[in-house]
Amino acid sequence: MDFGSILLMLVALIVLARLASGVFSRFGVPGLIGEIVIGIVIANLTIGDWSFLGMLDVEMGDDPSQNYEIVELFAELGVIFLLFAVGLETKVKDLLSVGKAAMLVAVMGVIVPLVAGIALILVYDGNMHHALFLGAAMVATSVGITARVIKDMKLIDTKEAKIIIGAAVIDDVLGMVVLAIVVGMTASDGISVSNIALISAEALLFVVAILAAALWVVPRIYGYFEERNKKKFAETGSSHSGINKLVLAIAVCIGFSFFADMIGLAAIIGAFLGGMLLAEYAWEWKLEEKIESITTLFISFFFLNVGMQVDIGSLTSVSAILLAVVVILLAVATKYVGCNLGAVWGDKSLSKGSRNIIGFGMVPRGEVGIIIAAIGLASGAMSSELYGVVIVMAVATTIIAPPLFARAFRKEYPPEYKLTQDDLI
Amino acid sequence: MDFGSILLMLVALIVLARLASGVFSRFGVPGLIGEIVIGIVIANLTIGDWSFLGMLDVEMGDDPSQNYEIVELFAELGVIFLLFAVGLETKVKDLLSVGKAAMLVAVMGVIVPLVAGIALILVYDGNMHHALFLGAAMVATSVGITARVIKDMKLIDTKEAKIIIGAAVIDDVLGMVVLAIVVGMTASDGISVSNIALISAEALLFVVAILAAALWVVPRIYGYFEERNKKKFAETGSSHSGINKLVLAIAVCIGFSFFADMIGLAAIIGAFLGGMLLAEYAWEWKLEEKIESITTLFISFFFLNVGMQVDIGSLTSVSAILLAVVVILLAVATKYVGCNLGAVWGDKSLSKGSRNIIGFGMVPRGEVGIIIAAIGLASGAMSSELYGVVIVMAVATTIIAPPLFARAFRKEYPPEYKLTQDDLI
Repeated sequence: MDFGSILLMLVALIVLARLASGVFSRFGVPGLIGEIVIGIVIANLTIGDWSFLGMLDVEMGDDPSQNYEIVELFAELGVIFLLFAVGLETKVKDLLSVGKAAMLVAVMGVIVPLVAGIALILVYDGNMHHALFLGAAMVATSVGITARVIKDMKLIDTKEAKIIIGAAVIDDVLGMVVLAIVVGMTASDGISVSNIALISAEALLFVVAILAAALWVVPRIYGYFEERNKKKFAETGSSHSGINKLVLAIAVCIGFSFFADMIGLAAIIGAFLGGMLLAEYAWEWKLEEKIESITTLFISFFFLNVGMQVDIGSLTSVSAILLAVVVILLAVATKYVGCNLGAVWGDKSLSKGSRNIIGFGMVPRGEVGIIIAAIGLASGAMSSELYGVVIVMAVATTIIAPPLFARAFRKEYPPEYKLTQDDLI
Repeated sequence: MDFGSILLMLVALIVLARLASGVFSRFGVPGLIGEIVIGIVIANLTIGDWSFLGMLDVEMGDDPSQNYEIVELFAELGVIFLLFAVGLETKVKDLLSVGKAAMLVAVMGVIVPLVAGIALILVYDGNMHHALFLGAAMVATSVGITARVIKDMKLIDTKEAKIIIGAAVIDDVLGMVVLAIVVGMTASDGISVSNIALISAEALLFVVAILAAALWVVPRIYGYFEERNKKKFAETGSSHSGINKLVLAIAVCIGFSFFADMIGLAAIIGAFLGGMLLAEYAWEWKLEEKIESITTLFISFFFLNVGMQVDIGSLTSVSAILLAVVVILLAVATKYVGCNLGAVWGDKSLSKGSRNIIGFGMVPRGEVGIIIAAIGLASGAMSSELYGVVIVMAVATTIIAPPLFARAFRKEYPPEYKLTQDDLI
């Protein structure tokens, strides 16, 4: 293991990401887009035999170098801690209060893009397998990007933010069901319906169990320790509980991420739910600022890595470029329309501005769409051309959505909710 | 890359380390010793074909699994951020004020163990190559362990702490010189004297350049930006500099670690010097608490990994066990005596209690001795028996020293400097 090479790569990528972030936010664009764009640039910067990533010993592809695996690990940890922090600021009661709207936003935000994606590819090449996987890849919202913008704008307490976050959790469960069905329909060995039902039931049970635990179990555990500390204080004059709260939070964050991953959900959904378990005590234990420091170390690697997935060389044929443009437009439009419809039906009191926020907030696809396309490619149900299109779509929606989303949010919550430069740069 | 397996390993090791730390500190022993001991236990816990580490897919040895490489990376990052934090609390002026004492402590703390180690092995097996490498492995102080105890006891501001830290930096430069000489004397291809002189000069130049930069360059850069922000405030009413201080600190920490590693010093020395560059502004920028959160995530892996190096199975012959005991006693005694002598000559005003603190503080050898022994083993100049002895010595000095050190410190700074349970558990 070559620590020198790892340290050099880490510092080079952190500095580049922050410079790009600083330049973009100076022009009023969310800094994370600068980090994604610099990721695209460095992944494609090749002069003859020399490449920027090669210099840092970052080799991507089927047989990645150790340094690239560290980038991937840090990217994953970054988005896990980011969603954990969002969970820390989300109380279960608040989330349940927007439950109906979030549910309808999620369902409509899944159905409309799925149907449109399938229809598009059936028209384009008539291959049902291709159509099913592209449809599935257009389904899942990647809440990491939106969560970052919401956190940077300090708007987690708004109703719109809660609906988006709740819908993203439901979306992930639905996305898993859709993926399972698509894999079942395209695979020759066939995944049984009972298998799909089992996995979905597991996921649902997990989410419901955590909501219940947050409402009834955790307060009792907390009350028990509080009581014991009071007694201890009366006896010894010291009320110290002896448990480091940050270590507890880290263990909950990583533990729940692991568990969610194990039962087939995205790890970030586990991290979010774990954070929600501790939301009532986050302020008292100063968890938010402590987790923020850890997130700061890792999160740039997440956005860099999103950009690094884009291989500009793969987009050479005119038909592929045209298809990519159509898929991007369709991905933005269908998610926006579907979520807007869901919001109208779910909560009559939402203004047009609020529905705008929700519609744009659900647009980014990010890594989830890429994972689905990769599964399709590996199983032979997806062509490599369509795989490239999905990656471009995932990255493009991630770049297009934040400015629209941020503008829509600023319109509804103008003066006192001003963007703070400190968080963005 | 199997993220699920990585997440499981991370959470399992974090929880185990903290439980062990909590149990040990309940009995008044520094928590980090609990983490080292649990590292020894889990690395040696094998029942038939089943092993605890195997369950977590952590395979050590010549062809380590990816999961173990992540443990190593987190261990390295942990100790880097720990020493960076110590640097943040160490001002150059304070360090220079103890310069003479630190220099003599370092020099005597190198010479006495080196001579004793060489003499012991010449008596034991008469092999000069073995003797030179064992002597060299007994030289270098691993300041990570001592730094953690000092930080936990909140005693960085004491004169003794400054002497230990200053001596450890000088020690590392001297250790490199000794290693270069030993390699030159034992290698058949022979490292030239001019080569040794060049490497040593580089290291010395680096340290002096950073001290100078901290005294004269950094304050000017800070003053320039301060001035600019004042102007900006006068013009726009906003004084925000637009630079995230934590990202700056992370980049300095990793960047200086890389540079130190590149010129042949330990990475942690670079991290310490980088921290010192920012020491004047650490409080204003709230850097210490932010870096503390990052350290908390990583540092347990460092202590776990120290313990995991011990292979109990390798200590089966009676002569090896006896030799290990003698080497351990010699390592503790010679470092203690050497540093005590250096302290007497370097600063007449130091009390016996203060010299006790310094003597015990320099005892832990940790990873540096292991690295030197590994170089010897790889070049064929060291037997595998002696390599095992060095590992046991490095871990044993690391376990023996902290309680003695903590007690000596508590004697000199009794009531108001009480250990805080919050930091230890």
